[in-house]
Amino acid sequence: MKEKLTLIKVGGKIVEEEDSLRQLLEDFAALPGAKILVHGGGRSATRMAARLGIEAQMINGRRVTDREMLDIVTMVYGGLVNKNIVARLQAQGVNALGLTGADMDIIRSHKRPVKDVDYGFVGDVDRVNGERLAGLIHKGVVPVMAPLTHDGQGRLLNTNADTIAGETAKALAAFFDVTLMYCFEKKGVLRDAEDDNSLIPHINEEEFRRYVADGTIQGGMIPKLENSFDAIHAGVGKVIITQASAIDGVSGTLIEK
Amino acid sequence: MKEKLTLIKVGGKIVEEEDSLRQLLEDFAALPGAKILVHGGGRSATRMAARLGIEAQMINGRRVTDREMLDIVTMVYGGLVNKNIVARLQAQGVNALGLTGADMDIIRSHKRPVKDVDYGFVGDVDRVNGERLAGLIHKGVVPVMAPLTHDGQGRLLNTNADTIAGETAKALAAFFDVTLMYCFEKKGVLRDAEDDNSLIPHINEEEFRRYVADGTIQGGMIPKLENSFDAIHAGVGKVIITQASAIDGVSGTLIEK
Repeated sequence: MKEKLTLIKVGGKIVEEEDSLRQLLEDFAALPGAKILVHGGGRSATRMAARLGIEAQMINGRRVTDREMLDIVTMVYGGLVNKNIVARLQAQGVNALGLTGADMDIIRSHKRPVKDVDYGFVGDVDRVNGERLAGLIHKGVVPVMAPLTHDGQGRLLNTNADTIAGETAKALAAFFDVTLMYCFEKKGVLRDAEDDNSLIPHINEEEFRRYVADGTIQGGMIPKLENSFDAIHAGVGKVIITQASAIDGVSGTLIEK
Repeated sequence: MKEKLTLIKVGGKIVEEEDSLRQLLEDFAALPGAKILVHGGGRSATRMAARLGIEAQMINGRRVTDREMLDIVTMVYGGLVNKNIVARLQAQGVNALGLTGADMDIIRSHKRPVKDVDYGFVGDVDRVNGERLAGLIHKGVVPVMAPLTHDGQGRLLNTNADTIAGETAKALAAFFDVTLMYCFEKKGVLRDAEDDNSLIPHINEEEFRRYVADGTIQGGMIPKLENSFDAIHAGVGKVIITQASAIDGVSGTLIEK
């Protein structure tokens, strides 16, 4: 039987507010066994851009990453957010190691081809080196992954944190019994985004398609669920969408085949 | 006989100018055997601070690191400078891994006590975990170290890159036959700072004291040489002070016991 591994993805909002960050780091430190934290940081990047007089450009909810914005996300995701999380986890006895996809060539990607929209220096993931990550984890290291990858030609690329979490979970499924948890502000997938009591406790692909067709599920939840089904099909043991305050794995929405 | 390891420390000026950085990365990639790169980044941090309307405060040539400046050096050293070097070394086939002292708890420090001057969030190194670093290096990993450490209480600390290089070389002397190279703009230790032909090819501690007494050696070169003698006494095989363009190890000033 494979060793269990929990991969927690937390959105920017959680890591950017001191109260929710403190709670998350405590809960994450208390999680038993092998684990990985993948974090966002978009709001901090936007704030830093504003302070530098650069306007964050968004198309279809996605950031356009020009050369200046690439420097900003490299600083904010790879430096400010990542290294502070690492230092604080170390203080809780977690042997954290901050990583971008460039470090140890963990995640290789390519610049997204320009079709209708030029998103700039944004990476679409080609492969995650699960073996190297697993080697670190077997030594007791806890990877803390920033949403940055590289193209192997010396260029860092801004990469969606949900995608990094999903692709990493898939690459590690060969080595571990992986539970992937997408954490955000809501209790899970809701029937009514305004009503926290409308949680959908489990969802399979057929139900997902029906919910999308009738408009119950929309927006950013759609790619999150697509990533989730993709992960389940690729051998990830369990995918849960839940609140950051519930990483115990017993609440939220469980994704089923 | 121990495996050879070369530890190169390069100042901010070298990594902040495209031409010298490109040359350095090529030369570093070509170095055979186990290796580590330790980098600065002070000028970039000062520039970023200026863009954010924060004035860099220096006392005795050392940066005062208040809370805002700590965020800036964390972004610039740990993110922008470090991760770009890592991505570019990966493009040259070097399995680089960017590290601060917080990552894997590699370098623990304490906040410098306030005596006459309060330098703020500046770290004095307590210990380097040579065993963990050696473990990574034996796996073919090439650490790229940013001048940041942590206090084990969740706080990152701005730390002198020369000190990080010296302490790391000392900690690795138990595992490797270490050559430590301090690289800067000059050919090495000069008799006359204005004359590149006045290189002192080797120097021992007695000569060093004489040169300091008669004013030949002064300023930032004094702590650099003190670090060097300290390293030699602690088992580091060879210490050289040289130009970044001469990391072949055959030129510059050789430090002797």
